[in-house]
Amino acid sequence: MTSDPTARLRQLGLELPAAPTAIAAYVPACIVPLSPGRVMVFVSGQILMRDGQPVRVGPVPEEVSLEDATDNARACALNVLAQLDAAVGLSNVEQLAQVTVFVRADGDFGGHPAVANGASQLFIDVLGEAGRHARAAIGVASLPFGVPVEVAAVAVARRGD
Amino acid sequence: MTSDPTARLRQLGLELPAAPTAIAAYVPACIVPLSPGRVMVFVSGQILMRDGQPVRVGPVPEEVSLEDATDNARACALNVLAQLDAAVGLSNVEQLAQVTVFVRADGDFGGHPAVANGASQLFIDVLGEAGRHARAAIGVASLPFGVPVEVAAVAVARRGD
Amino acid sequence: MTSDPTARLRQLGLELPAAPTAIAAYVPACIVPLSPGRVMVFVSGQILMRDGQPVRVGPVPEEVSLEDATDNARACALNVLAQLDAAVGLSNVEQLAQVTVFVRADGDFGGHPAVANGASQLFIDVLGEAGRHARAAIGVASLPFGVPVEVAAVAVARRGD
Repeated sequence: MTSDPTARLRQLGLELPAAPTAIAAYVPACIVPLSPGRVMVFVSGQILMRDGQPVRVGPVPEEVSLEDATDNARACALNVLAQLDAAVGLSNVEQLAQVTVFVRADGDFGGHPAVANGASQLFIDVLGEAGRHARAAIGVASLPFGVPVEVAAVAVARRGD
Repeated sequence: MTSDPTARLRQLGLELPAAPTAIAAYVPACIVPLSPGRVMVFVSGQILMRDGQPVRVGPVPEEVSLEDATDNARACALNVLAQLDAAVGLSNVEQLAQVTVFVRADGDFGGHPAVANGASQLFIDVLGEAGRHARAAIGVASLPFGVPVEVAAVAVARRGD
Repeated sequence: MTSDPTARLRQLGLELPAAPTAIAAYVPACIVPLSPGRVMVFVSGQILMRDGQPVRVGPVPEEVSLEDATDNARACALNVLAQLDAAVGLSNVEQLAQVTVFVRADGDFGGHPAVANGASQLFIDVLGEAGRHARAAIGVASLPFGVPVEVAAVAVARRGD
């Protein structure tokens, strides 16, 4: 398998979306110098929107099935990758360090790991070893615009310039 | 506009509150060395209390209006700034990197970005470019003491000494 | 009091559990180089399972009492320590920087700080000054497998090799 993330995306039949712009008074990704030639990148919580509207809304699994939620998590992860690509270039990502997956789900639901795997697996498929991250998956009462999943991340990257 | 955060606070008619002490077995801000002369500051989740009591309690928007929640988020952000000032001095903040805004809100609510902007806008108003952060805004089922908003943050700063 | 974390554990009558393996497509702890000889360790959200099953399930305080939830938080914290020990060796932990405690609890509950102290106090008891962390405690609608508490953390450590 190629070690180039962009080639891997192509092999997976995926294309990076345009990095979503921040909907509010913040930035999609914040870059801070770490050590010479290396930066830490904090990626804002990514959700799945299209043309300014959420693609899916509702709690998991009542209104959004486990399968659809997992697909949604994968799409959020693709947005995280798009943000990293826009910020530092995907091939400069040294390590995806931390991923937090927020699933909109009430008390009876316990399948967060399965949903979050939609995101985690994509990170590993695209970034390889550099995509093996620490993770917290939790169930929240509500999310922006009613979406079912939100994914935030922290990565370390070689400075692209 | 002045680039000094303390002067900006004055222009905004704001005064930093006393940095709230931790209510439990932790510290309000934890400083770790990053590279020579620079530190990373992890700020504990800040809520709005007065005289040991929460100023507002209840879910958004049922018991705390969107406007009041936004004001509350702004007050939490002011506490974050107070913690940063106490920890490293506000003028030493190189970059506010990551902000997490927890809004106490149930499934029907989707206005988290608006509430969280109360915090984000204050950070930008006071810190300027150094205040442009990555952000996750999520809706949680409950918060300490029943408050409607909690704001946590990570910043990078020049060592003040 | 000894400054050796392993000795402190013994004094507390505690034994580190085997570091739980990740239940899904991620790693229990992700190590990134920080500066020469130092690393940042992101520890995945830890929950309390035994033989692949959650030891307790349900919301706090309806089905899991405040006291049991506090004990659960302490057990999650012990798992965090086990992960840090497996990743870098507990005596190499320079600073536990950030702890997030997720408590499964609905709107009427406000006792998150008390529950979270179960985790925070253990960190301080075992790691001493190095265990004094920044913290966010929040109430979430659901957690993986129905557990009542999840604890995630970020630490800085001397590289053990």
